[in-house]
Amino acid sequence: MPPKPMRLGLCAACHGETGMAQLPGAPNLAGQRLDYLRKALKDYRDGSRDVPLMRAAIGPVSDTDLDQLARWYSAQTPPLQTSAQP
Amino acid sequence: MPPKPMRLGLCAACHGETGMAQLPGAPNLAGQRLDYLRKALKDYRDGSRDVPLMRAAIGPVSDTDLDQLARWYSAQTPPLQTSAQP
Repeated sequence: MPPKPMRLGLCAACHGETGMAQLPGAPNLAGQRLDYLRKALKDYRDGSRDVPLMRAAIGPVSDTDLDQLARWYSAQTPPLQTSAQP
Repeated sequence: MPPKPMRLGLCAACHGETGMAQLPGAPNLAGQRLDYLRKALKDYRDGSRDVPLMRAAIGPVSDTDLDQLARWYSAQTPPLQTSAQP
Protein backbone atom coordinates (compact mmCIF):
# COMPACT_ATOMS: atom_id res chain seq x y z
CA MET A 1 0.00 0.00 0.00
CA PRO A 2 1.39 3.45 -0.87
CA PRO A 3 1.85 5.98 1.95
CA LYS A 4 -1.24 7.97 2.82
CA PRO A 5 -1.06 11.20 0.79
CA MET A 6 -0.77 14.46 2.70
CA ARG A 7 -3.57 15.97 0.64
CA LEU A 8 -5.93 13.05 1.02
CA GLY A 9 -8.42 14.99 3.15
CA LEU A 10 -9.33 17.20 0.22
CA CYS A 11 -10.35 14.21 -1.91
CA ALA A 12 -11.75 12.15 0.95
CA ALA A 13 -14.47 14.67 1.65
CA CYS A 14 -16.27 13.39 -1.45
CA HIS A 15 -14.51 10.17 -2.45
CA GLY A 16 -13.77 8.75 1.02
CA GLU A 17 -10.36 7.85 2.40
CA THR A 18 -10.60 4.43 0.79
CA GLY A 19 -12.19 5.60 -2.47
CA MET A 20 -15.82 4.82 -1.74
CA ALA A 21 -18.00 7.81 -2.60
CA GLN A 22 -19.44 9.79 0.28
CA LEU A 23 -22.19 11.60 -1.58
CA PRO A 24 -24.33 11.35 -4.72
CA GLY A 25 -22.57 12.30 -7.93
CA ALA A 26 -19.08 11.38 -6.75
CA PRO A 27 -17.63 8.19 -8.24
CA ASN A 28 -15.97 5.41 -6.32
CA LEU A 29 -12.21 5.44 -6.91
CA ALA A 30 -11.10 2.34 -5.00
CA GLY A 31 -9.13 0.04 -7.27
CA GLN A 32 -9.62 2.25 -10.32
CA ARG A 33 -6.89 1.88 -12.91
CA LEU A 34 -3.90 4.06 -12.21
CA ASP A 35 -3.57 5.24 -15.80
CA TYR A 36 -7.20 6.30 -15.84
CA LEU A 37 -6.92 8.19 -12.54
CA ARG A 38 -3.79 10.01 -13.70
CA LYS A 39 -5.44 11.07 -16.96
CA ALA A 40 -8.65 12.13 -15.19
CA LEU A 41 -6.72 14.37 -12.80
CA LYS A 42 -4.78 15.93 -15.67
CA ASP A 43 -7.95 16.45 -17.70
CA TYR A 44 -9.73 18.05 -14.75
CA ARG A 45 -6.81 20.34 -14.09
CA ASP A 46 -6.46 21.61 -17.66
CA GLY A 47 -10.21 21.91 -18.13
CA SER A 48 -10.53 19.40 -20.95
CA ARG A 49 -12.81 17.56 -18.56
CA ASP A 50 -14.85 20.49 -17.39
CA VAL A 51 -15.91 19.94 -13.80
CA PRO A 52 -15.42 23.21 -11.91
CA LEU A 53 -15.35 21.58 -8.47
CA MET A 54 -12.60 19.19 -9.50
CA ARG A 55 -10.65 21.93 -11.25
CA ALA A 56 -10.80 24.11 -8.17
CA ALA A 57 -9.86 21.22 -5.90
CA ILE A 58 -6.86 20.14 -7.97
CA GLY A 59 -5.53 23.56 -8.90
CA PRO A 60 -3.41 24.09 -5.76
CA VAL A 61 -2.14 20.49 -5.56
CA SER A 62 1.38 19.74 -6.81
CA ASP A 63 2.07 17.17 -9.50
CA THR A 64 3.82 14.98 -6.96
CA ASP A 65 0.82 15.12 -4.64
CA LEU A 66 -1.55 14.31 -7.51
CA ASP A 67 0.48 11.25 -8.40
CA GLN A 68 0.42 10.10 -4.77
CA LEU A 69 -3.33 10.52 -4.67
CA ALA A 70 -3.82 8.52 -7.88
CA ARG A 71 -1.60 5.74 -6.50
CA TRP A 72 -3.38 5.73 -3.17
CA TYR A 73 -6.85 5.32 -4.62
CA SER A 74 -5.79 2.82 -7.25
CA ALA A 75 -4.23 0.66 -4.53
CA GLN A 76 -7.42 0.48 -2.44
CA THR A 77 -9.55 -2.65 -2.60
CA PRO A 78 -13.27 -2.03 -3.10
CA PRO A 79 -15.39 -3.71 -0.43
CA LEU A 80 -17.71 -6.52 -1.45
CA GLN A 81 -21.09 -5.09 -2.30
CA THR A 82 -23.75 -5.88 0.25
CA SER A 83 -26.76 -4.10 -1.17
CA ALA A 84 -27.98 -2.65 -4.43
CA GLN A 85 -28.26 1.09 -4.92
CA PRO A 86 -31.65 2.54 -5.81
CA MET B 1 -28.11 -9.15 -10.63
CA PRO B 2 -29.83 -7.31 -13.50
CA PRO B 3 -30.34 -9.17 -16.78
CA LYS B 4 -27.37 -9.09 -19.14
CA PRO B 5 -27.92 -6.12 -21.49
CA MET B 6 -28.38 -6.86 -25.18
CA ARG B 7 -25.81 -4.20 -26.08
CA LEU B 8 -23.21 -5.33 -23.57
CA GLY B 9 -20.77 -6.50 -26.24
CA LEU B 10 -20.19 -2.95 -27.42
CA CYS B 11 -19.07 -1.86 -23.94
CA ALA B 12 -17.36 -5.11 -23.03
CA ALA B 13 -14.80 -4.72 -25.79
CA CYS B 14 -13.08 -2.09 -23.65
CA HIS B 15 -14.64 -2.35 -20.19
CA GLY B 16 -15.07 -6.14 -19.97
CA GLU B 17 -18.31 -8.01 -19.40
CA THR B 18 -17.89 -7.61 -15.65
CA GLY B 19 -16.58 -4.05 -15.75
CA MET B 20 -12.86 -4.69 -15.47
CA ALA B 21 -10.99 -2.71 -18.10
CA GLN B 22 -9.56 -4.65 -21.02
CA LEU B 23 -7.07 -2.08 -22.25
CA PRO B 24 -5.10 0.93 -21.06
CA GLY B 25 -7.09 4.12 -20.80
CA ALA B 26 -10.43 2.43 -20.13
CA PRO B 27 -11.71 2.68 -16.56
CA ASN B 28 -13.03 -0.17 -14.48
CA LEU B 29 -16.81 0.10 -14.10
CA ALA B 30 -17.56 -2.82 -11.77
CA GLY B 31 -19.45 -1.61 -8.74
CA GLN B 32 -19.33 2.02 -9.80
CA ARG B 33 -22.16 4.12 -8.44
CA LEU B 34 -25.27 3.95 -10.56
CA ASP B 35 -25.89 7.71 -10.43
CA TYR B 36 -22.35 8.37 -11.64
CA LEU B 37 -22.60 5.87 -14.51
CA ARG B 38 -25.91 7.32 -15.65
CA LYS B 39 -24.55 10.85 -15.65
CA ALA B 40 -21.34 9.80 -17.41
CA LEU B 41 -23.31 8.13 -20.22
CA LYS B 42 -25.53 11.20 -20.60
CA ASP B 43 -22.52 13.54 -20.61
CA TYR B 44 -20.71 11.43 -23.20
CA ARG B 45 -23.78 11.34 -25.40
CA ASP B 46 -24.43 15.09 -25.37
CA GLY B 47 -20.74 15.91 -25.72
CA SER B 48 -20.38 17.78 -22.43
CA ARG B 49 -17.83 15.10 -21.64
CA ASP B 50 -15.97 15.12 -24.90
CA VAL B 51 -14.66 11.65 -25.64
CA PRO B 52 -15.31 10.92 -29.32
CA LEU B 53 -15.07 7.14 -28.96
CA MET B 54 -17.67 7.09 -26.21
CA ARG B 55 -19.94 9.50 -28.06
CA ALA B 56 -19.80 7.33 -31.16
CA ALA B 57 -20.37 4.18 -29.15
CA ILE B 58 -23.36 5.52 -27.27
CA GLY B 59 -25.04 7.43 -30.10
CA PRO B 60 -26.99 4.48 -31.53
CA VAL B 61 -27.97 3.01 -28.13
CA SER B 62 -31.48 3.66 -26.80
CA ASP B 63 -32.12 5.29 -23.43
CA THR B 64 -33.53 2.01 -22.14
CA ASP B 65 -30.42 0.14 -23.22
CA LEU B 66 -28.17 2.76 -21.64
CA ASP B 67 -29.99 2.41 -18.36
CA GLN B 68 -29.64 -1.38 -18.49
CA LEU B 69 -25.92 -1.03 -19.12
CA ALA B 70 -25.45 1.36 -16.19
CA ARG B 71 -27.37 -1.03 -13.93
CA TRP B 72 -25.40 -4.01 -15.13
CA TYR B 73 -22.00 -2.52 -14.46
CA SER B 74 -23.00 -0.96 -11.17
CA ALA B 75 -24.22 -4.36 -9.96
CA GLN B 76 -20.91 -6.14 -10.68
CA THR B 77 -18.55 -6.86 -7.81
CA PRO B 78 -14.93 -5.90 -8.44
CA PRO B 79 -12.53 -8.80 -7.87
CA LEU B 80 -10.04 -8.60 -5.04
CA GLN B 81 -6.84 -7.05 -6.27
CA THR B 82 -3.97 -9.47 -6.52
CA SER B 83 -1.18 -7.29 -7.87
CA ALA B 84 -0.28 -3.65 -8.24
CA GLN B 85 -0.34 -1.95 -11.60
CA PRO B 86 2.87 -0.38 -12.88
